[in-house]
Amino acid sequence: MRTELQSTPPTRGLDLPPNIIDTLVNFFQTQTTQRGFRRVVYGLSGGVDSAVVALLCQKVFQNNAHALLMPSLSTPSSALEHATELCKAFQIPVSHHPIAPHHALFKDRHKDANLIRQGNFCARLRMATLYDYALEHHALVIGTSNKSERLLGYGTIFGDLACAINPIGNLYKSQIYALARLLQVPENILNKPPSADFYAGQSDEGELGFSYAEIDPLLLAMEQNPHLDFNALVALGFAPKLVASVQERMAKNAFKLEMPTICAL
Amino acid sequence: MRTELQSTPPTRGLDLPPNIIDTLVNFFQTQTTQRGFRRVVYGLSGGVDSAVVALLCQKVFQNNAHALLMPSLSTPSSALEHATELCKAFQIPVSHHPIAPHHALFKDRHKDANLIRQGNFCARLRMATLYDYALEHHALVIGTSNKSERLLGYGTIFGDLACAINPIGNLYKSQIYALARLLQVPENILNKPPSADFYAGQSDEGELGFSYAEIDPLLLAMEQNPHLDFNALVALGFAPKLVASVQERMAKNAFKLEMPTICAL
Repeated sequence: MRTELQSTPPTRGLDLPPNIIDTLVNFFQTQTTQRGFRRVVYGLSGGVDSAVVALLCQKVFQNNAHALLMPSLSTPSSALEHATELCKAFQIPVSHHPIAPHHALFKDRHKDANLIRQGNFCARLRMATLYDYALEHHALVIGTSNKSERLLGYGTIFGDLACAINPIGNLYKSQIYALARLLQVPENILNKPPSADFYAGQSDEGELGFSYAEIDPLLLAMEQNPHLDFNALVALGFAPKLVASVQERMAKNAFKLEMPTICAL
Repeated sequence: MRTELQSTPPTRGLDLPPNIIDTLVNFFQTQTTQRGFRRVVYGLSGGVDSAVVALLCQKVFQNNAHALLMPSLSTPSSALEHATELCKAFQIPVSHHPIAPHHALFKDRHKDANLIRQGNFCARLRMATLYDYALEHHALVIGTSNKSERLLGYGTIFGDLACAINPIGNLYKSQIYALARLLQVPENILNKPPSADFYAGQSDEGELGFSYAEIDPLLLAMEQNPHLDFNALVALGFAPKLVASVQERMAKNAFKLEMPTICAL
């Protein structure tokens, strides 16, 4: 029984929820109306998550949804090309706000800063750039982090994790791909490995040590059965190394999904 | 009865809690230990809030508490002087990380950006600078926002409101002054008008339209009796204009104290 489970971890529940697009459209309409906004803005990276958000926003807000391209010194030209092509193909309003000059200043001041420090700084510069655009144009900042990266803490707090509202934050990465196909995201975006683009050749799955196809069923099992401990998850058929790694990341990064702790008085 | 109340709004509860310093020291020790940190970092502006945080941190962490001075193009030289003098007087480890070069880049790119946009951008640059220091030195970022400004939303989301832990976030501004006297914060810091220093001459109380001595008793009454509406607060003796202004600010800015809204599925 255990062997059988090992080869087929439970994947039920990773299908897209029925009427997902209607749900997301309704979310956008309700949230913007409640908050008194007609315009939205989001960062478009050339990756699949922000492409999905772009096409959803375009569906709901048309010309009132604006994409910002914010390349740093580390952004591969292919990412910019994919983002630009997407905007052309779907007539998405877009503007170019490179953060490369700030990135260069940062590198100049911190010559020893490793790629992780640079990447986090750039993620926060993008947040600051989006919020500045939002203030100028009375727009709401839309988040583009999916559930897998949010749960694993694979993102920058007060950087890419920061936003006013996030339509896709309860969709696992595997579900983002299904939604992207539904929305007809171009193949060049669908086919490249997910990356935070902190440096050339970086990939989510390389850094995490496992593919999202391995991680997502585990995250789902943990969500559906929050009481299951390490041994119980391994007994369900998940590889011990995978469970240990995911549990460690979740514990270490849980703070990224919480408000700051204020001293109680 | 009503006339009498009007001249003496309820101020009970704005005294400092007993043993406040022990409580705050214990908060620091518990939070850093739980999170696996020995070092902390905070931004020192020259104002009273960050001066209080500096002296508390110094008490608990000594040389493992580090102050960053992060002047923008708008920072008055007096603010830097007060911060520097405080560090000298109390032997606080400090370093200088000006964000002025980033501020200049921002102004150059956005020539029409008003002072509010510039100030918000600078607040987020300071957050990014603090978090970069924290990553480099394995330190925890300490927040310096008091309860009055947090409730009023008088701060920059993902900027000065962002931190890991905040010792003073449940103390009203009036209480911060009392605590500052207890900690022997120098008179030059105690005596100047509170300001976000977005531009020369800016003052919290000028922008809010009321003094903290007027605002804090109202915030306390609202906290102690969350069911009281506008008329009930006016009946308690608070000026109608004050109540209307504070209620409007709180409603408009409540989002700054909440996590992003994620679409439920």
